[in-house]
Amino acid sequence: MAKEKGLTPQSQDFSAWYLEVIQKAELADYGPVRGTIVVRPYGYALWENIQQTLDRMFKETGHQNAYFPLFIPMSFLKKEAEHVEGFSPELAVVTHAGGEELEEPLAVRPTSETVIGYMWSKWIRSWRDLPQLLNQWGNVVRWEMRTRPFLRTSEFLWQEGHTAHATREEAEEEVRRMLSIYAKLAREYAAIPVIEGRKTEKEKFAGAVYTTTIEAMMRDGKALQSGTSHYLGENFARAFDIKFQDKDLQVKYVHTTSWGLSWRFIGAIIMTHGDDQGLILPPRLAPIQVVVVPIYREESREKVLEVALDLKRRLLQAGLRVHLDDRDQYTPGYKFHEWELKGVPYRVELGPKDLEAGEAVLASRLGGKERLSLEALPALLPDKLAAFHQALYQRALDFQRAHTHKVDTYEAFKEAVQEGFALAFHCGDKACEKAIQEETTATTRCVPFEAEPEEGFCVRCGRPSAYGKRVVFAKAY
Amino acid sequence: MAKEKGLTPQSQDFSAWYLEVIQKAELADYGPVRGTIVVRPYGYALWENIQQTLDRMFKETGHQNAYFPLFIPMSFLKKEAEHVEGFSPELAVVTHAGGEELEEPLAVRPTSETVIGYMWSKWIRSWRDLPQLLNQWGNVVRWEMRTRPFLRTSEFLWQEGHTAHATREEAEEEVRRMLSIYAKLAREYAAIPVIEGRKTEKEKFAGAVYTTTIEAMMRDGKALQSGTSHYLGENFARAFDIKFQDKDLQVKYVHTTSWGLSWRFIGAIIMTHGDDQGLILPPRLAPIQVVVVPIYREESREKVLEVALDLKRRLLQAGLRVHLDDRDQYTPGYKFHEWELKGVPYRVELGPKDLEAGEAVLASRLGGKERLSLEALPALLPDKLAAFHQALYQRALDFQRAHTHKVDTYEAFKEAVQEGFALAFHCGDKACEKAIQEETTATTRCVPFEAEPEEGFCVRCGRPSAYGKRVVFAKAY
Repeated sequence: MAKEKGLTPQSQDFSAWYLEVIQKAELADYGPVRGTIVVRPYGYALWENIQQTLDRMFKETGHQNAYFPLFIPMSFLKKEAEHVEGFSPELAVVTHAGGEELEEPLAVRPTSETVIGYMWSKWIRSWRDLPQLLNQWGNVVRWEMRTRPFLRTSEFLWQEGHTAHATREEAEEEVRRMLSIYAKLAREYAAIPVIEGRKTEKEKFAGAVYTTTIEAMMRDGKALQSGTSHYLGENFARAFDIKFQDKDLQVKYVHTTSWGLSWRFIGAIIMTHGDDQGLILPPRLAPIQVVVVPIYREESREKVLEVALDLKRRLLQAGLRVHLDDRDQYTPGYKFHEWELKGVPYRVELGPKDLEAGEAVLASRLGGKERLSLEALPALLPDKLAAFHQALYQRALDFQRAHTHKVDTYEAFKEAVQEGFALAFHCGDKACEKAIQEETTATTRCVPFEAEPEEGFCVRCGRPSAYGKRVVFAKAY
Repeated sequence: MAKEKGLTPQSQDFSAWYLEVIQKAELADYGPVRGTIVVRPYGYALWENIQQTLDRMFKETGHQNAYFPLFIPMSFLKKEAEHVEGFSPELAVVTHAGGEELEEPLAVRPTSETVIGYMWSKWIRSWRDLPQLLNQWGNVVRWEMRTRPFLRTSEFLWQEGHTAHATREEAEEEVRRMLSIYAKLAREYAAIPVIEGRKTEKEKFAGAVYTTTIEAMMRDGKALQSGTSHYLGENFARAFDIKFQDKDLQVKYVHTTSWGLSWRFIGAIIMTHGDDQGLILPPRLAPIQVVVVPIYREESREKVLEVALDLKRRLLQAGLRVHLDDRDQYTPGYKFHEWELKGVPYRVELGPKDLEAGEAVLASRLGGKERLSLEALPALLPDKLAAFHQALYQRALDFQRAHTHKVDTYEAFKEAVQEGFALAFHCGDKACEKAIQEETTATTRCVPFEAEPEEGFCVRCGRPSAYGKRVVFAKAY
């Protein structure tokens, strides 16, 4: 049994650990079509908590949800030159429908800028129609060569925000506002420390003027782009003729933005926090925050279960997401193991002797056990969960800091990206950036917003640095 | 302006009214691809309220959400003979992806029984793995010849529940439980009276043993199937080899069910309640329950808006979904008209004279105005909304009863289905049922669960009646 649930240690093969933990913790399974996954209830509940958290923040900042069609005429994608270049190799194409060959093939949306642009050109006439602050929850398809559950799947679930504004300033503010919301989700809900910054020209979204990003460090030192927010300028407005009459009576193009976060964020949670025993889920997003495991023999069964059920009820009343594992066919040891694998932050162990003492054992997924009064548990747990969140965040931040190095030589750079992030100067030349990628497999992750102003010489070619600060480089998912 | 917002009267052309009200109330617009729609924020907010209501009821009855892939290998669909026969004419097919022709074409899911069946065959081994109680929120594609917004669109949003059980009895209970949830959504949230019943063999879901349905009457007397729940027997279990070892150690096929409700339900709401002025939305699902329209001149503007804002705040605190229409560029008359069109149940009119008296005018979308104390409004409105719901339901029920006729001759039958439902005996023969459809365009809607036992002779062919009761016939969407 222990063997069946056992995971390859992270240090031995991080990639194998990742694939195993997803399957064994029942987050997801492989779908029948290449590169697709099935998100199982435990994984989907995690996604729902991410959704609800983001959706609330989107609505608080004035955004409204809408739904645009899955199928996009191929001609639409061709209207923005960089956009089609970036996405056409990944398109899935519907050529037949209703038993007939279609006159124009349809792309299954890889992202919805084009179809939303088309609709905006019909809806927007005047400054009174602006801003448009829309969001869509849905699926998109990108046919990639190498796939990996949650991180790179042929189809994935995400949200895509799309906004249109009267001015560049307003649009750029929106880009940063939404990136901040992603950073807040990462830090305050997922306990993931992230670096906010701007992508280089080479790494920006196909069709954007520029792209901003949140970058997280996984426990193998690789980076994971966890959410992006793009300033699209007038690119899509010109491609789709989205114009408005401004207050000054001039007819102008709108400025658009888009921003997206996908179930890849689940991958970030798994790889930022997990250990050799399995997942460790951040309490504010965990589907189950506390699991109650009753320990009994035949003669004590009824009594223990009665108290366990009462405890569950009181924990629910305290607003906690709690699960009582009252399965008769498994031993307590088996259950402990399973809920550790599934990353539940706290486990309450409740046996006949505990009952007599009016106590229970509280075990933390981060290690450590303590005996606590049964009576007091519901009042104590919210603070415990908050502390768990803090500890998890601090642990990830310490790891990130320990694996981030300022480097000024290419040798040191190569070493640094073997184990984490390299902070280095770069000349800003695309060809040089590409050469670094070819030579080291590391890419620029972002030009961080928060970094100190600094000048120096490109870590590879020695030319003067662009950007006015160090750039974050890393191997990335 | 009145002209721009004006609708074709229902009595003149119900279909034109329907299409106009959807566009003008900004529920939806047409997408660029044939048969697709774009659901705009106001329409999507209505869908979100439907979603949340159902999702809560699903979870309360032990169901969990999951997500299965959009693309299904064509070979899967062929495994259940009736299923493929029913759906293959409507499939959209992906033949190319990632720049290459696929070895096996992929169907864009028209429904997910097959892919879920495939996964269950991997997941289910023992009675301990049962029941499986899953639900999925997502999009599906059915390429139909004649399309109509919300009712019949190439792509639509819906939920599809899929469950697997150890016994027939348990599965059949599930079928009825979920139909009851749909009926509850209709009656208690959407104020739509529905008839619950079983579909005839001719009208059942492709692949089901039998189908149950809720049927509603639109204001043109036509029926709208608003949600269905299917008992699939062992059909999909045999097609996908979904077996389990039971407690008695025997290996058995599971019994499966599926049940779905789509954004077609929005169409039911529009056509059950709307009138010549526009939508009338049921308060428990309405995105906006109360709209506050301030009435002011330049000199009273500040004072009126201040009180309006305070009222909005107090209504929000009372748990109401409220909107303050403080747009300066439109007249109160224009706003009244717009919110009537959009079907907001209550409008609060607030002018300088009202303020002096400490009062406001409350106008109901069902007609009638009254002056009420500003102070008391937040406490009064919940009861008003409950009464609005009741009145709306009663109005729809009265309409349905007035347009439902027991008929025993084919002449009377033909007349009855011109204006509503016909309750008639039928022989149960598929060919006879088909002949009725060809001769009158009416179809069987269901054999109602609640009808009294009665025997008679087929309204068309005179043979003895099947079903032991009268069947509901109607023209239908």
